[in-house]
Amino acid sequence: MNLSSSVLDQLVQQFSQLPGIGKRSALRFALFMLRQPQNEILNFANALSQIIEGVKYCKVCHNLSDTDICSICNNPKRDQSLVCVVQDIRDVIAIENTMQYTGVYHVLGGLISPLDGIGPENLTVNELVVRIQQNEIKEVILALNSNIEGDTTNFYIARQIKDLEVKVSTIARGLAVGDELEYADEITLGRSLLNRVPFKAL
Amino acid sequence: MNLSSSVLDQLVQQFSQLPGIGKRSALRFALFMLRQPQNEILNFANALSQIIEGVKYCKVCHNLSDTDICSICNNPKRDQSLVCVVQDIRDVIAIENTMQYTGVYHVLGGLISPLDGIGPENLTVNELVVRIQQNEIKEVILALNSNIEGDTTNFYIARQIKDLEVKVSTIARGLAVGDELEYADEITLGRSLLNRVPFKAL
Repeated sequence: MNLSSSVLDQLVQQFSQLPGIGKRSALRFALFMLRQPQNEILNFANALSQIIEGVKYCKVCHNLSDTDICSICNNPKRDQSLVCVVQDIRDVIAIENTMQYTGVYHVLGGLISPLDGIGPENLTVNELVVRIQQNEIKEVILALNSNIEGDTTNFYIARQIKDLEVKVSTIARGLAVGDELEYADEITLGRSLLNRVPFKAL
Repeated sequence: MNLSSSVLDQLVQQFSQLPGIGKRSALRFALFMLRQPQNEILNFANALSQIIEGVKYCKVCHNLSDTDICSICNNPKRDQSLVCVVQDIRDVIAIENTMQYTGVYHVLGGLISPLDGIGPENLTVNELVVRIQQNEIKEVILALNSNIEGDTTNFYIARQIKDLEVKVSTIARGLAVGDELEYADEITLGRSLLNRVPFKAL
């Protein structure tokens, strides 16, 4: 794409680095920004540069936070003995949206992925082990994605904490609520049969 | 969505203003930016703030440009007597990519749309009329989108320049190359029959 303005071209380059954004969408974004009032553009630029300095991580659960201890870890109504291990803040948001979980979190910051050069030392696994050793934690729920990286990370964490007195569980896999059996993939259907639960009439 | 970091939240707000971007994609972009090195984030912020001052428009065709006269208008190989009227820079890029056009452009900066409060005075229609009056222009090609706004703008421009000695044409509408007749919509197929052209064996 040959843009006649190098200033616009630079902005298009920047937008096209975003995940899932190609040149065409990037140009659309850049032209949209061009039509915005000056202060809107400055606000956007400031919001970007602020994340360099302004983002803090909770010292307990490593979730993003404005304060040293995040609002979830600080909440006295939360069960501090139940820790849900997740990959990143998006999973915290997803679980929070269910309104079903009253424990606290531990954000790993990624999954073990040798191909991407991410080992356990790049994640907060050690911090999790120390956290379990130093606090009264009864149960750790592993809520990682079910792919190779997730399974590897699950396995690694389980081995690290197997000698500690803590129950380790993982979220249930099965057919989604509303799914039809005939369209379910074999692995999910197979697992949902293996991990069947007692029927309870509502 | 309840983010635990107000700095991140602000960036998500900014990203979600972009056309076609919802909260979820905005969060994905913001988390992506969070993982970028410091200088990358600053580059992005700078690219944004630069468009406030750094973007110029060609004085002849009103296309985006780094210089007073853009590289297309300045090109001696271009036919200055053939002017293609387009909505914005994206259409210039699309036509340039065909490699079939050797004339110059006139960028309107939008289409007449009373619902959005855009009248002819917000566009470069007057500049087009003056340009035709003061230069030797033989033909004006109207290459606007074929929707109500495009048709209105076509009609308005045609009326403004009807007394000037200039040929006015519009781009051909018809079935796209490779399209099958049975799947074409009725209006396009009807127009392509009305505007049929003599058959030329290649």
